[in-house]
Amino acid sequence: ISDSDAALAHGLFEDLHPADAADAVEQLSYDQQIALAELAPRVFGGEMLAELQDDTRADIINELDPGHLAEAIQDLDSDDMTLVVEDLDPEMRARVLAEVSDSDRERLESSLAFEEDTAGRLMQREFVAAPTFWSVGNTIDHMRRAGEDLPDLFFEVFVVDEAFKPVGSIPVSRLMRCGRDVRLADIMVAPQAIIRPDRDQEEVAYLFEKYHMISAPVVDDDGRLSGMLTVDDMVDVIQEENKEDMLALAGVNEAGSSDTVWSSVRARAPWLLVNLGTAVLASGVIAMFEGAIAQLVALAVLMPIVASMGGNAGTQSLAVAVRAIASRDLTVSNAARVIWREFAAGAVNGLIFAILMGAIAGVWFQSFTLAWVIALAMIINLACAGLAGILVPLGLKRFGADPAVASSVFVTTVTDVVGFFVFLGLGAMVLL
Amino acid sequence: ISDSDAALAHGLFEDLHPADAADAVEQLSYDQQIALAELAPRVFGGEMLAELQDDTRADIINELDPGHLAEAIQDLDSDDMTLVVEDLDPEMRARVLAEVSDSDRERLESSLAFEEDTAGRLMQREFVAAPTFWSVGNTIDHMRRAGEDLPDLFFEVFVVDEAFKPVGSIPVSRLMRCGRDVRLADIMVAPQAIIRPDRDQEEVAYLFEKYHMISAPVVDDDGRLSGMLTVDDMVDVIQEENKEDMLALAGVNEAGSSDTVWSSVRARAPWLLVNLGTAVLASGVIAMFEGAIAQLVALAVLMPIVASMGGNAGTQSLAVAVRAIASRDLTVSNAARVIWREFAAGAVNGLIFAILMGAIAGVWFQSFTLAWVIALAMIINLACAGLAGILVPLGLKRFGADPAVASSVFVTTVTDVVGFFVFLGLGAMVLL
Repeated sequence: ISDSDAALAHGLFEDLHPADAADAVEQLSYDQQIALAELAPRVFGGEMLAELQDDTRADIINELDPGHLAEAIQDLDSDDMTLVVEDLDPEMRARVLAEVSDSDRERLESSLAFEEDTAGRLMQREFVAAPTFWSVGNTIDHMRRAGEDLPDLFFEVFVVDEAFKPVGSIPVSRLMRCGRDVRLADIMVAPQAIIRPDRDQEEVAYLFEKYHMISAPVVDDDGRLSGMLTVDDMVDVIQEENKEDMLALAGVNEAGSSDTVWSSVRARAPWLLVNLGTAVLASGVIAMFEGAIAQLVALAVLMPIVASMGGNAGTQSLAVAVRAIASRDLTVSNAARVIWREFAAGAVNGLIFAILMGAIAGVWFQSFTLAWVIALAMIINLACAGLAGILVPLGLKRFGADPAVASSVFVTTVTDVVGFFVFLGLGAMVLL
Repeated sequence: ISDSDAALAHGLFEDLHPADAADAVEQLSYDQQIALAELAPRVFGGEMLAELQDDTRADIINELDPGHLAEAIQDLDSDDMTLVVEDLDPEMRARVLAEVSDSDRERLESSLAFEEDTAGRLMQREFVAAPTFWSVGNTIDHMRRAGEDLPDLFFEVFVVDEAFKPVGSIPVSRLMRCGRDVRLADIMVAPQAIIRPDRDQEEVAYLFEKYHMISAPVVDDDGRLSGMLTVDDMVDVIQEENKEDMLALAGVNEAGSSDTVWSSVRARAPWLLVNLGTAVLASGVIAMFEGAIAQLVALAVLMPIVASMGGNAGTQSLAVAVRAIASRDLTVSNAARVIWREFAAGAVNGLIFAILMGAIAGVWFQSFTLAWVIALAMIINLACAGLAGILVPLGLKRFGADPAVASSVFVTTVTDVVGFFVFLGLGAMVLL
């Protein structure tokens, strides 16, 4: 695509919606992206940079000229501006901050003072506030006057008291429907949630989702209105958190479409190392029964089936549990019932597949004893799998860790060790 | 909780926000939910029913009295009304439809005529449309007059031509900011997307996410504006699709917090059955090398390690691929590069863990030959795992299937079969 013709590159991207332009850039390899940034920096306008995925943006913006960057972001709302600037290296960030206007710099610095992934980082500082005693007419006139100082898009007017604390909100659509004389105090509703800037973005996104909120006020330490969060930003947060959960369950630290081989290796090797440790542990269990296997090779042939079924059942329980924890469906009040259900579902499936596998093993190896050894091992391992699948993520959460991270390694360790130990142990006891 | 005191139950739920009331109900077991529905049907108001998760709602509404249901839903917007009614049994649905007003019945019937999970089902029929030649003042006056016929909440006014086709949209916030004399034609922008009612909800949600849309017009076959989709409904769709992907990857057909043991068993048994089939297949591979194992039990001890590492690496690639397909980051134009990356990342990780595991096996069993047999098997299996992890979901997608469903079973089959075959085959060749 980008074989050194800057004018052509500009032409190609010019007519695209920023989101489409960002998508096109995502399709390129890392090297191509960097080449494009050097060749045709003007392709990377402010809105398009804001649309890029975090990892792609971080790669590209550090290659751009600080002066160009400062110019590109100047027309963005403050939340998008923060999004772009937060990924810069410290030195680049200082140079860009030196180039933007005083008011933008002030806003950026106070946003960047909040932790990453908090409401304070995400909020935009442009919002519409009106005192309780104003009428609908006052508010509309104010908005017509304010013009450029208002956010590009907003959905609610926040009603504030004398101390600038948010006491109500009014959807713009309701404001339009009411006569000019109606007082704001009479049509406002209490805000569904008032967000503190240090609140984790995942919790905030959950509130938006639960209450179908469109925007929410953010307050400072004194409870004064200082910013606004909107649902379109929350959609990105929800997707990001879902992606993290899904990748964490599979043992991948992070992933982007333009990842190189090397970054993929680094994101996955740590969990493969942990898995190697647990696999060696499971092999140690097998090694305890070397004598039995040497006498009856059928044990070696069948043992992976018990472990595999346990691993599968455990992964099922785990996915259900992680999902339920993320959506707040699994809480202290119903934990006991859900734990029981997972155990029982594992045991029932264990019974079903014990009968099936027992029959297969019995016919295959012409041994009734082997059939019921594998059947019993299957029931025990699938019941343990159900328990491990729910208790591991609950335990991780209890200790303040992310229930998705590392949990599948723990669960498969349990199912491998229990599966091999019970099957080989029973086999050694009964068959030899 | 619900031990037969209806008044108490009503009192408990009365002051709760519908979303909180729905959450409280979700925490109950299936039996408790049904008991509560029989005891205190008035707890289940329209808005609260709309907030319930699909499976919980389906359980409860069929236990309620059709007359109560018809009354409960009458004040809902048409999209929420459809949501409640679509889960009813055919007989109940007919009885509820008989009780609602004529205009509601007509709207419900036309919504229900669309397939489930399409834009037509999700859209609401209340929206604000204005002709191009109106001024801002005309529009505001119209909204003040229309009052109750307008949707509860809306974010954009759709501008339509003489044929009632949507030609533009104006955020309400922009409308408020402009003087009364400004003509709509001068401030409208072309709609980012015009949705056809048979469009799949997942695709629509993707458009909302990509373009940060707040609402979108839905048109009928003649291109006439017939409904509206809003971002808050899309948040639910996004969560639902993410949940489906995550559960599908783990081999669970569906899951809700109030599932019984039996419904959990049914949702998981099919995939366990498939897994049993592939596990038996893998065992068949092992059985081919029974002679080798009988002579050298170390092969049986080490073989699960090769399979487990392959399974893990394959799951990593798979999660990255499924996620990239869902977010449209993985397309035809970059598929070759991503396939190469997954293969190469698998091979590099294979090399790293081949060295590590070779050293462990060499020390453990005091055999240099065994060390390099397991090392070579590890490299081959992890490279195959990377390939399978990306090719299986791409293949499923190519054939029109959901790339998340069934893919992990295919991938672990590949890694088990390749892992056992290569390791035992090499071992038998070299060591005996």
